[in-house]
Parts: sequence; C-alpha cells; structure tokens
Amino acid sequence: MSWKRHKLTIAFDGTGYAGWQRQKTGLAVQAVVEVALADLLGSRVVLHGSSRTDAGVHALGMVAHLDMPVGAPRIPCEKLPLALNARLPEDVRVVRAERVPEGFHARFGASGKEYRYQVWNARVMNPLLARTAWHVPVALDPEAMRRAAAAFVGRHDFRSMAANHGYRIEDTVRTVRLCQVRRVGELITFRIRGDGFLYKMCRGMVGTLVQVGQGKIGAEDVGRILEQKDRRVAGVTAPACGLVLWKVFYRNGGVVEGELAAAGAERSEEEE
Amino acid sequence: MSWKRHKLTIAFDGTGYAGWQRQKTGLAVQAVVEVALADLLGSRVVLHGSSRTDAGVHALGMVAHLDMPVGAPRIPCEKLPLALNARLPEDVRVVRAERVPEGFHARFGASGKEYRYQVWNARVMNPLLARTAWHVPVALDPEAMRRAAAAFVGRHDFRSMAANHGYRIEDTVRTVRLCQVRRVGELITFRIRGDGFLYKMCRGMVGTLVQVGQGKIGAEDVGRILEQKDRRVAGVTAPACGLVLWKVFYRNGGVVEGELAAAGAERSEEEE
Repeated sequence: MSWKRHKLTIAFDGTGYAGWQRQKTGLAVQAVVEVALADLLGSRVVLHGSSRTDAGVHALGMVAHLDMPVGAPRIPCEKLPLALNARLPEDVRVVRAERVPEGFHARFGASGKEYRYQVWNARVMNPLLARTAWHVPVALDPEAMRRAAAAFVGRHDFRSMAANHGYRIEDTVRTVRLCQVRRVGELITFRIRGDGFLYKMCRGMVGTLVQVGQGKIGAEDVGRILEQKDRRVAGVTAPACGLVLWKVFYRNGGVVEGELAAAGAERSEEEE
Repeated sequence: MSWKRHKLTIAFDGTGYAGWQRQKTGLAVQAVVEVALADLLGSRVVLHGSSRTDAGVHALGMVAHLDMPVGAPRIPCEKLPLALNARLPEDVRVVRAERVPEGFHARFGASGKEYRYQVWNARVMNPLLARTAWHVPVALDPEAMRRAAAAFVGRHDFRSMAANHGYRIEDTVRTVRLCQVRRVGELITFRIRGDGFLYKMCRGMVGTLVQVGQGKIGAEDVGRILEQKDRRVAGVTAPACGLVLWKVFYRNGGVVEGELAAAGAERSEEEE
C-alpha cells in the first residue's frame, strides 16, 4: 500500500456541467474537483476518472484516482471527503476516499460498470424528477421492453447503439451482464451493467427500448439491429438527464500491469 | 354536475416558491397557476387550495378548485392540463383536471391527507436528492423511530408538534391514521397520513422522530411529549425541502354543506 495513490468515489448532479472530463469549453466535474484538491493540497493534482460521462449525465459512484503530490499535507483518508466537500459546490460530493496500491487505475483497472436510467411515463411530468428522469408521455409496454432488454444481454457488437464520435473505434464488442426494466407506478428504471460501454451506448439502448415500448420497434428486432451494426437502424438516443453512473466495479483491487499503470496513459476507447 | 366548478391536481417543486398560498412577499404557486388560468381563460380566476404548504415544501397531489368565469372558453377537462402546462414554469405541473359538483371544496371537503418526507442518512449528501431530502449525517436507529412513530397514530392533541403561528389555534386535536418509517439503503421515507394537520405539524413529527433515531429523545417519551402540549419539549422542525404533499383524500366527492361551500370561506385553522 502506497501513501501516494488515492481512490475517490464521487457523486454529482450533472445538470450544470459539461460532463466529467475537462473540456476546452464548459465546466467539467473533473476540473471542479481538481480545483478543490489544489486548494486543499497546495499544488496541482490530476484526477483520472473511470468514465467520461457526457454533459448532463449524473453519477452516484464515479471513481477517480490521484497521486498525492510530494510535500502535500498528510491528510488521513477518512478526513478527505469532509475537507474536499467544504471546497466543492453542493452538486458535487466526494462520498469516499481510500488509499490504493500504486498499480490501481480508476479507468483501466475497472472490470465493469452499472448505469441506471429513469423514465417518467405519464402524460404530465413529475416536477420533482425534472432533473433526473426522461419524460415519456406516451404509454409504454413494459413486457415488450423486458423481452427486448434480454436481447442486449451477452457479448455483442454494440456499434449500432453507440454514437459515432468522429473517429474510428476499433473494437465495438462489449459484454452486457444485466439489462433490467422495472416499473413502479409511473417510474420506469433501467439497470444496465456491463464490462464496458461505448460512447452514448447506454442512452442508445434506453432510447431503443423506449421505442420498443411504444411499438415503433419490435422486441424481436433488437437482435437484428445489433447485427446490422448501423446506428441509424436503432432507436433514438435517450436524453442525458435520465442517466446515472451508479457504480464502478474493480477486480483484483483495480490494479493493472505494465504501461497502462502509468497514470497518464490513455486508450482510444471513448465511454459514456 | 356543474360546468362551472373544476378540481385541479397540481404537482410542484417548491424549492423556488414562497409556498402554495398567495403572499405579500415572494412568489406563491397559487399565484403562478392563477396567472396561467387568467391567460388561458381571459379573466381573473381564484384558486382554492386544499393546503397552505409552506415555503420550500413540494407537492405531487395538491388539490385546488376554481369556478370557470362566465363567458370563458369551454375547454374540455382533459385538455386543461396541457393548455395550462404550456403557460406554467416547468417546476409547476397541472397533473389532472376534473369537473366536480358545485358543493365540492378542495379544503373543507378534504377528509384526509398524506405527506411524505425523505431523509438521506449518510455521512455525505446525495447530490441528486439535494432539493428533496433532508441530509442527516449521523446514524439513526430505524427501530426506535418506528416505535416512536407508532405513538403518533391515533387521536391526539398535536400542539407540541406544531409551530405557534402567532395567533390562537383553538382546536389542536388531530387524528393521525398512519405514521410509517421505511429505510431502503441510505434513504429513509416517512409516510404520514391524517385527517388534518396543524401548521408545521408533519415537520415537527419528523424532526422529533429523527431525534429519537439519534437517541436524543427516547422512543417511549413521545407519548409524554404529546401530553405536555408544549412545542419546546419536542424535537426540531425538519427542513421544508424533505416534505411532499403526496395526496389529498375526499369522501362523498368532497362536497360540503352550508356556509363552508361558499368558495371564499376561510377557517381559522392553519395547515402545513
């Protein structure tokens, strides 16, 4: 166990942010937490997040790691959340801080992620969910959505669910472990767990499932849509506000080997 | 069935409002809906709400009635929500409109109400619930809270739970039908249903239950606190943001007899 590397679990209301990752324009959650860290530690610190959540997407379990700068005050882990939250806006909270081994990497050490998505399915929107749910006013058939959701589970090429980000993504095969549709009253919650996600893949899946619920896409067509590997044949991209990065999973303590362990390493893969 | 009288069910995020009832200072939800009604109907309309919710309190099932002005366009009931919502800010929504008999009264015809209150019980606040839950960072004992909640159920003098509003309230006896404490993970939800509520009574009950959960008040002391009829012996008043007026109940179609039926009638009773 090194003193240096720390893992932070971060929750945020993404409504006012340009996503997790530092941007040329717009305020990113990463930048906001880095400012709080610099203020606390007295020198600039770079955060490495598990996922590049998009503008407006929320998180309850974003994970990021950092290396404590040389000479930084030795603040006990359990005091870090309180000290950072005092320096953060209320819509960004550090939930937990842990010391992790040198080889831990928030992104490359992640073995899986769970996203949740909320839909308010009633003629009139629930104003208490305006920031955190997608309003779908037309009736949805939960049974059809459940059948379609089952077709997403497993190892598939998810190219037709993901947004093309302007550059080539080489490997678009991902494994979805869970795709659950649950209805309680007018609230529909989607739970999607997988080993990895392509850019806007979750929102493409939810948009497709909602169109299945409306009868615009057949539940049995989802397998064929995946096979076509063409974004245009799938459903709409569900809006960002309904999506929450719920939890990031790590196997072997999130430790990665070799070059990837270098904190600055980046892969070409883009995630939701 | 008269053409004139209509019942509206209204949901709102109370964060930005000075409560339901029109005020000398601050924007009230009632005023906002009345402006939308005047714009739609071409003449001034007065709304009569079921409850005077306090500043910052939310509602999913506020009920209000109005009489359609003479000469107003005859808009079918089922079209009213859409037409009004187009004229309302997003944090106020008309969920439903119904024609009701002349004798219906949103306030005096109400036979009961249900409030819900959310507490986020974890060291760090959930930023997605910042507008709709009270953050209680210290550990709470749900079993003690449940025992204490049971003491509220029944017909009691609730003077020690209510805020003194500066003038004499004659009758402070109310019947609480249900007082439930449910914990799911870090979220504690209180359901309180009763025949009527005094000013800030729900928030006094929740504040007292939370102090029971902290061990500051004994679960078995709640009965004695009620008997003392003194606000100072009870717990704190829980903050407004956690409270939601969930549902208003009507027996006999909410029809009242005699003088009360006059739309402008007011009782001296103040409600949450």
